[in-house]
Amino acid sequence: MRKEVRISGFGGQGVVLAGVILGRSAALYDGKNAVQTQSYGPEARGGASKSEVVISEEEIDYPKVIKPDVLVCMSQQAFDKYGRDIKDEGTVIVDRDLVTVPENFYNGNVKLYKIPFTDIAYKDIGLKIVANMVMLGALVRITGVVSKEAMRKAILDSVPKGTEKKNLIAFEKGYDYINEY
Amino acid sequence: MRKEVRISGFGGQGVVLAGVILGRSAALYDGKNAVQTQSYGPEARGGASKSEVVISEEEIDYPKVIKPDVLVCMSQQAFDKYGRDIKDEGTVIVDRDLVTVPENFYNGNVKLYKIPFTDIAYKDIGLKIVANMVMLGALVRITGVVSKEAMRKAILDSVPKGTEKKNLIAFEKGYDYINEY
Repeated sequence: MRKEVRISGFGGQGVVLAGVILGRSAALYDGKNAVQTQSYGPEARGGASKSEVVISEEEIDYPKVIKPDVLVCMSQQAFDKYGRDIKDEGTVIVDRDLVTVPENFYNGNVKLYKIPFTDIAYKDIGLKIVANMVMLGALVRITGVVSKEAMRKAILDSVPKGTEKKNLIAFEKGYDYINEY
Repeated sequence: MRKEVRISGFGGQGVVLAGVILGRSAALYDGKNAVQTQSYGPEARGGASKSEVVISEEEIDYPKVIKPDVLVCMSQQAFDKYGRDIKDEGTVIVDRDLVTVPENFYNGNVKLYKIPFTDIAYKDIGLKIVANMVMLGALVRITGVVSKEAMRKAILDSVPKGTEKKNLIAFEKGYDYINEY
């Protein structure tokens, strides 16, 4: 079954790396097909950053997101731009402290999660820049779009040497946070 | 005008990062549109890694490479897989020491460059892992698909903090190598 994930935020939050890791985990370690895309248009010059991943058991004909099943917003600007574009019964995950979702913005069919990615990254690991790994942990736990083990392997592949441990801890923190959500 | 670039190699050579940097330089600093894609299928599990960038002044309807204008091969396996797939009058750039191109493989219309990316990275910078930056320098000098200044900025954006200088030196080494090619 085709699953479409859009990850958005501002430059420097590691949105692209998060998309790359998600695509790798699906394809290299979960045995699925995946296409991961960065699209840059005039809007990219405003500071919003976007990374898309399409995952499927079958071959992927059209590589871009049509209507996301899963939308992650790590900044207000990203939410304002992409917040409305979500499948019925889709899942929206936002950084609790960086994004304000207006009341009754979504009807009852969209699942909305507000998670303090950046706060967890800063308080638990001491590094705001691993907020993207906290986000991936939460994403995997909430959506199951890839397996936890596949993503752990893809993180090890993809982060700079010497930073593996902190990135994995951040991932686990995000994953565990959802257990008590 | 639409330009299609395919960068291929093995995992760990930074093929994905190179594609991300190329896409960013075109879109954020040269004022064009760009879509950058990683496709993972069953073939990805064999160790070949591929990153594609489509660059255009116009909006990009179809985000994947149809027939590359520019093909980079940083490994023999990548060359064996993608070497044939190049536009008439296209440009092929290979790592001289890692790829053997059979004699008369290309007809006279394809421009073939053999450049010691990895050797330059190792001898001049002391780090094989910056071979991808050497490659980007050569790519920019040969193809002009993005401006040198745009790519310098995109490299600064994209590489891990603290490694900017070595990456930029590697980029310049690749760029300058072509002056004497």
